[in-house]
Amino acid sequence: MRLAKAKPEQVLGIGTDFTCCTMLPTLADGTPLCSQKKWRNSPHSWVKLWKHHAAQPEANDINKVGAKRNEEFITAYGGKYSSEWFFSKLLETLREAPNVYDAADRFIEAGDWLVWQLTGVEKRCLSAAGFKAMRITRSRKKGEWTYPDRAFFKALNPKLADVVAEKMSGEIIGLGSNAGGLTQKMAKKMGLLPGTPVAAANIDAHAAVPASTVTEAGKLVMIMGTSTCHLLAAKREKPVEGVCGIVQDGVIPGLWGYEAGQSGVGDVFAWYVENGIPAELSQTAKRAKLDIYQYLEQHAAKLKPAESGLLALDWWNGNRSVLVDADLSGLLVGQTLATRPHEIYRALLEATAFGTRQIIEAFTSQGVAIDELIACGGLAAKNPLMLQIYSDVTGRPIKVAASDQASALGAAMYGAVAAGVHPDITKAAKKMAKVRKKVYRPSTANKKTYDRLFVEYTKLHDQFGRDANSTMKVLKRLKNQALGL
Amino acid sequence: MRLAKAKPEQVLGIGTDFTCCTMLPTLADGTPLCSQKKWRNSPHSWVKLWKHHAAQPEANDINKVGAKRNEEFITAYGGKYSSEWFFSKLLETLREAPNVYDAADRFIEAGDWLVWQLTGVEKRCLSAAGFKAMRITRSRKKGEWTYPDRAFFKALNPKLADVVAEKMSGEIIGLGSNAGGLTQKMAKKMGLLPGTPVAAANIDAHAAVPASTVTEAGKLVMIMGTSTCHLLAAKREKPVEGVCGIVQDGVIPGLWGYEAGQSGVGDVFAWYVENGIPAELSQTAKRAKLDIYQYLEQHAAKLKPAESGLLALDWWNGNRSVLVDADLSGLLVGQTLATRPHEIYRALLEATAFGTRQIIEAFTSQGVAIDELIACGGLAAKNPLMLQIYSDVTGRPIKVAASDQASALGAAMYGAVAAGVHPDITKAAKKMAKVRKKVYRPSTANKKTYDRLFVEYTKLHDQFGRDANSTMKVLKRLKNQALGL
Repeated sequence: MRLAKAKPEQVLGIGTDFTCCTMLPTLADGTPLCSQKKWRNSPHSWVKLWKHHAAQPEANDINKVGAKRNEEFITAYGGKYSSEWFFSKLLETLREAPNVYDAADRFIEAGDWLVWQLTGVEKRCLSAAGFKAMRITRSRKKGEWTYPDRAFFKALNPKLADVVAEKMSGEIIGLGSNAGGLTQKMAKKMGLLPGTPVAAANIDAHAAVPASTVTEAGKLVMIMGTSTCHLLAAKREKPVEGVCGIVQDGVIPGLWGYEAGQSGVGDVFAWYVENGIPAELSQTAKRAKLDIYQYLEQHAAKLKPAESGLLALDWWNGNRSVLVDADLSGLLVGQTLATRPHEIYRALLEATAFGTRQIIEAFTSQGVAIDELIACGGLAAKNPLMLQIYSDVTGRPIKVAASDQASALGAAMYGAVAAGVHPDITKAAKKMAKVRKKVYRPSTANKKTYDRLFVEYTKLHDQFGRDANSTMKVLKRLKNQALGL
Repeated sequence: MRLAKAKPEQVLGIGTDFTCCTMLPTLADGTPLCSQKKWRNSPHSWVKLWKHHAAQPEANDINKVGAKRNEEFITAYGGKYSSEWFFSKLLETLREAPNVYDAADRFIEAGDWLVWQLTGVEKRCLSAAGFKAMRITRSRKKGEWTYPDRAFFKALNPKLADVVAEKMSGEIIGLGSNAGGLTQKMAKKMGLLPGTPVAAANIDAHAAVPASTVTEAGKLVMIMGTSTCHLLAAKREKPVEGVCGIVQDGVIPGLWGYEAGQSGVGDVFAWYVENGIPAELSQTAKRAKLDIYQYLEQHAAKLKPAESGLLALDWWNGNRSVLVDADLSGLLVGQTLATRPHEIYRALLEATAFGTRQIIEAFTSQGVAIDELIACGGLAAKNPLMLQIYSDVTGRPIKVAASDQASALGAAMYGAVAAGVHPDITKAAKKMAKVRKKVYRPSTANKKTYDRLFVEYTKLHDQFGRDANSTMKVLKRLKNQALGL
């Protein structure tokens, strides 16, 4: 407020976003269990961040039980519920720390918890509930959504039978809804007016969608950073292989929201820069007053598609979509004694572009259209070569969000909607969101070469990714054995 | 002579070795064509080194004509005559510089040419003639070897019909034969006695075999450097896939000599050290007063087999045996965000060991026994971890030649045989050759894990190496297209 030289009355609404699924156990009044002296030393009483992966055995069991019972969430989650998500983490707590489970009055998304703290009212947004907590089951009443029924949870663990009623009940609200007014206490802490409308909680990546000007169907937003999150709004519900979730009204009110993703993008480039760049090249870059990324990009940009003879699978951090398999790993093929680092760097950029194209084709093969790509996030702002390659590989134009803080802007836009400043998110986007002037357009010649490389990428993708006894799977098993895991 | 404080009369015999096939056109008296003013500017008048690869189209035609006519050399060369060898280079000269071909009275191996210069007599050793120049065809007289007949050469090119009679005739002599005495002129130049016996020319890698103490069947000698040459003597002649040649008396008199090889070994490690080691690691190694190889070896040695989760195909410089395909390339699979350089380094060591095991199994699957490995060459002397991995991967003990200059020692040993100092190379080896005390022996536990990794290596080997439309082949074709080749 001080930096913006803003007065409290100028703040008309509040919007938030949060990483998701990030969840925590609390008391009935919202007090986090981990803030209690009694529970402080019990790890499961703490917040479980989105990137907590330890609940894989629980996810496996959920998928087994879900598939056996033909639960709807199996399809909505592209065939597999993730270890990162709400009930995997909750079941892990129940199994490993039953006393924490018993002591928790509520289990709640951190985003919803934040809104609860601001407003004093516990309400959950349908977006996180749908994308992470299985609230995508059709209830008997037409057009209504619910969690899976008691029998499913009971089959998972008898103590879970009534988990929804006991620990998660409460009003579900839509994106852009006014969750309540800012409490006196919070208003004082924040230097704002009590009663200022607070919007329903939003997922960080999802908030970036309208901030990238997208409020209609057919435009894929890529939030590009260490990993990439792909978000799409569509008019219809279709089963798309390996999506992370399909939720009505979940990304943009009025449309079906789809989420997909690549679990390693910027992280893979960073791995290479940290682990694969020889000292001599670092010094050359330094003398040219370029950082390593700039140096690599400058040289990689001079290569034609296919010129390096290299091809990679981008699974250094597993595969989130289409295969949904954390046990997959990276691959690089085509090295010769003449291969140089900028060629490998370009092959890694290309591999992530091919990964995005796999995701796009999983949608389009089901008749879900994707006409245009819009990029945002730290990586998009800094890597023109990467975006040109994505455009060439996917054969689609790519726009870039004007804001470097698209999630924060999107959260504010929903705040404006909750406060009634704009009637809906589409109108808010028209006023508050922008893309940059520069549009990346595919080169026909490059697209043609990349089409041929993509055939090879797909061959490797299917061979290493779809076979339960592929070399990657065997290597992982032997590695675990060697490490005594 | 000065450094050794030796007197001329103490030099009882002379032995030489030379890279092979390295060949040149000369006049009838041995004068190299390239030394003539008239021919100096004509590239094909010069020596063609072993590593000259430009005659691939000629090799392809030779293989086509040879296969069609069912020539014996096709089997003896493991299915494929190489672009590096004698008639590929000779045919290239005929096609691209017919005037050089016409002007050349002789085409000769550089090793044989050197002996000719020393003795004044043109004689060719059966070893190079057999391994590189197709003198492995059974003549009508039982037990005698000859070049392919006139009809084959005529089918290749009418002008070649009489190439053997016109440009290559002359006496063929065996390994350890006395080719003649040192001429007056050469004796004066070298400070030796005229008439000193000069042994038949030998191939550099082959000379290392007796210098590694090996003069009997069943012991595979690995000459390990930038590439690895595998040499084996055996009692029987068997068709082994992808060998570089099978020649009676060609490695050790009285036995069948087999040659195989890996076209990139030390070169692959050097590529990685030059192109893949981050500055931070270089500095850490420097502080620890270790060179990069030592640092990597120290850390790689702490890993268990399979612990890194990585597996590589070692074809950075193509595959010489079993696949005989210069168009193949490298592959690394299993990378994660936690993969570190010493793990990649170990995976490359292991890949070359798996490559050697493929070669060993090509022999043993045909009933050609290999009981023990003997390593020599620069790489063998410097890399204990590598040799231990080779022993674990192949399940065989490995000895190391005592001499760091095994080829030179072996040449001297044949010089001693030619001079009658020792009656044969076996006796010479008993007196002049040694292995080191340290013997590498396979660990049962490591062998077991490597057996499982080798199954995966073999899967990748066959998939990427045996399919004419494998991803590696397509990448190479697209690369050539991108480069306009």
